[in-house]
Amino acid sequence: MNKVKLGIIGLGNQGSTYIKAINDGLVPDIELGAVADRLDSRREWVSANIPQGVQVFKDGMELIKNAKCDAILIATPHYDHPPLAIEGFRTGLHVLVDKPAGVYTKQVREMNKVAEESGKVFAMMFNQRTNSKFKKMHELIQGGSLGAIKRVSWIITNWYRTQSYYDSGDWRATWDGEGGGVLLNQCPHNLDLVQWICGMPSAVRAFCHNGKWHNIEVEDDVTAYLEYPNGATGTFITSTGDFPGTNRFEVSLEWGKLVNDDGRSLTLYKLDSNEREFCKTAKGGFDKPKMTVGEVETDGSNEAHVGVINAFTGRILRGTPLVAEGREGINGLALSNAMHLSSWLDKTVKLPLDEDLFLAELNKRRALSPKKEGSGKVFDTSGTYNA
Amino acid sequence: MNKVKLGIIGLGNQGSTYIKAINDGLVPDIELGAVADRLDSRREWVSANIPQGVQVFKDGMELIKNAKCDAILIATPHYDHPPLAIEGFRTGLHVLVDKPAGVYTKQVREMNKVAEESGKVFAMMFNQRTNSKFKKMHELIQGGSLGAIKRVSWIITNWYRTQSYYDSGDWRATWDGEGGGVLLNQCPHNLDLVQWICGMPSAVRAFCHNGKWHNIEVEDDVTAYLEYPNGATGTFITSTGDFPGTNRFEVSLEWGKLVNDDGRSLTLYKLDSNEREFCKTAKGGFDKPKMTVGEVETDGSNEAHVGVINAFTGRILRGTPLVAEGREGINGLALSNAMHLSSWLDKTVKLPLDEDLFLAELNKRRALSPKKEGSGKVFDTSGTYNA
Repeated sequence: MNKVKLGIIGLGNQGSTYIKAINDGLVPDIELGAVADRLDSRREWVSANIPQGVQVFKDGMELIKNAKCDAILIATPHYDHPPLAIEGFRTGLHVLVDKPAGVYTKQVREMNKVAEESGKVFAMMFNQRTNSKFKKMHELIQGGSLGAIKRVSWIITNWYRTQSYYDSGDWRATWDGEGGGVLLNQCPHNLDLVQWICGMPSAVRAFCHNGKWHNIEVEDDVTAYLEYPNGATGTFITSTGDFPGTNRFEVSLEWGKLVNDDGRSLTLYKLDSNEREFCKTAKGGFDKPKMTVGEVETDGSNEAHVGVINAFTGRILRGTPLVAEGREGINGLALSNAMHLSSWLDKTVKLPLDEDLFLAELNKRRALSPKKEGSGKVFDTSGTYNA
Repeated sequence: MNKVKLGIIGLGNQGSTYIKAINDGLVPDIELGAVADRLDSRREWVSANIPQGVQVFKDGMELIKNAKCDAILIATPHYDHPPLAIEGFRTGLHVLVDKPAGVYTKQVREMNKVAEESGKVFAMMFNQRTNSKFKKMHELIQGGSLGAIKRVSWIITNWYRTQSYYDSGDWRATWDGEGGGVLLNQCPHNLDLVQWICGMPSAVRAFCHNGKWHNIEVEDDVTAYLEYPNGATGTFITSTGDFPGTNRFEVSLEWGKLVNDDGRSLTLYKLDSNEREFCKTAKGGFDKPKMTVGEVETDGSNEAHVGVINAFTGRILRGTPLVAEGREGINGLALSNAMHLSSWLDKTVKLPLDEDLFLAELNKRRALSPKKEGSGKVFDTSGTYNA
């Protein structure tokens, strides 16, 4: 195989972006084999923007069964990610799933199982993992040289969206169509990064506010308190209603502190001693450990979506590493599910969460979810990824 | 009266600082009239550092009854603030109370009542209100030109203290001696400022961790989630165990955002339109309000403790404004009490809080509080106020 023949399922904001990347020659290992979308308007748009000979389907399952492809990229509404991926693996295709992995972990656990059994390449579109500053945070913290984590704080409120955004799709921001709001749509990146960099919490207490800033039934404002297995605590604050928002990710550790300020700077405050030892032995009540403060050097790279796709084809063609293994998608989703469940039950939720209880509570909300009409608008998403 | 003859009750870290300010001529309206401290070692130190003729008492109540003073400054352990202030007002003295106003609001409510009835000047040592950046935040937000508050976030973890600090006083960091930890000792400033600048929340959910970073029985790590009457939310995060800590106070409003970054900068992100209107009328899903970003100019002043004392004597001698009215001390304490109560009950606490319930829960902890011996060390506190 010289090229990976790819089927793209879902041609909304994301799917159409991937078509452009292919057309622009940014993912040279890819040959577009087929596309699918349930909306006539989108299939018409894409037919005018792809080479002759690319197969066009109305239904993703039809594409999987009938198109001549090696791999699929799934960029549909979230509930469809796992069933399409499962069908893809069973058909012998490699699968790249856009975020989130799915809407509930029980569904994603099944997808992971089928993926594992298939032996096919399984990747997640966690494009923000290609950001060199997040990569460096992962290396520094998971590498262990800064000691144990003491506190995590991420204010990630720069996901501003207007009412028009929510009105654009009939599935958007509904329990039945999307499965959630800012946690399911914008934050899968951040929830993945926070677990990739800091590990999984052991308990979550969240305060989700539904339709606080927009006329929607799902959450557009979340404050979550996290507890980690070692006793460290954290906060995760997000919204699509703040402008200008903030993106400030800070991790305090035994040997210092890392602050990623909106991707503009990554500052390391490195102590000369372990604070835990210093605290116990210092003579003065107001003594402070010595430290050095500096900007962490990175290579500045950030290949984003294109980087994820190139790594996906690299794994298929040459066995090189993925940006994010598909099976890891369940972690950020577990955080999201725990935040929803905590807010619904008005209490702390332990991780791993009770997946059946979550699904039962979600289904209660889906059953009451009113039908909504979408404007069908496709927006240019360039510059909106906060990466 | 040309000068205010002042009695200082309590000669620990704070009281000794005030003596130095008087000796250094920084509070020219003050004539030191008397001092009181229960510890022999402190009375000996102060006797060598004050003018002849200043009366020295072992007991604050004795000073109030017998010293020839116009006013008292109370810098004792916290439980004694209200009873000493009440006795002072009843004796016809003006009263300046160091923070916090007391340990529980029920006690402070009584102090406020007696103060009101006495007609005497009543001030709180909220020295951080003299900081020009906090003053500007108060003016801009309470002035209303930025519209309603949407989100408040204060990470104030730069109150680092060593074990030696906690070992220095027998009353420190005990339920029975101090009544709490970081919320009662370090954070009264921040809790006062957050209510002075943003108003009082209507509900609090807090997660206090006792003895997490130090061998103490009270909290040294707190994450609190706040809800305001208008639906805005907030977080308040503090600790004496993080180094280096963070001091970042951000307020998001309808017309923009204010960020006070460790007192180094106060940045205003000012929108051209009210975000609430913009959200509803914008055509594009990813449209953003226009804004201008700039550093807020202030006069740079920060008179701190000396400013509070000079304003106190100014009110007594010339009727000029105080930095902080004494009766306002109850607000920050109510926040602190609500955070403790929420954590103890493991649930959300509405404000105004149930003061009897709080006191009953506090007294349970006081009854179990073991006796502790203090090293008696007095530390130089210059540069430790985060002002």
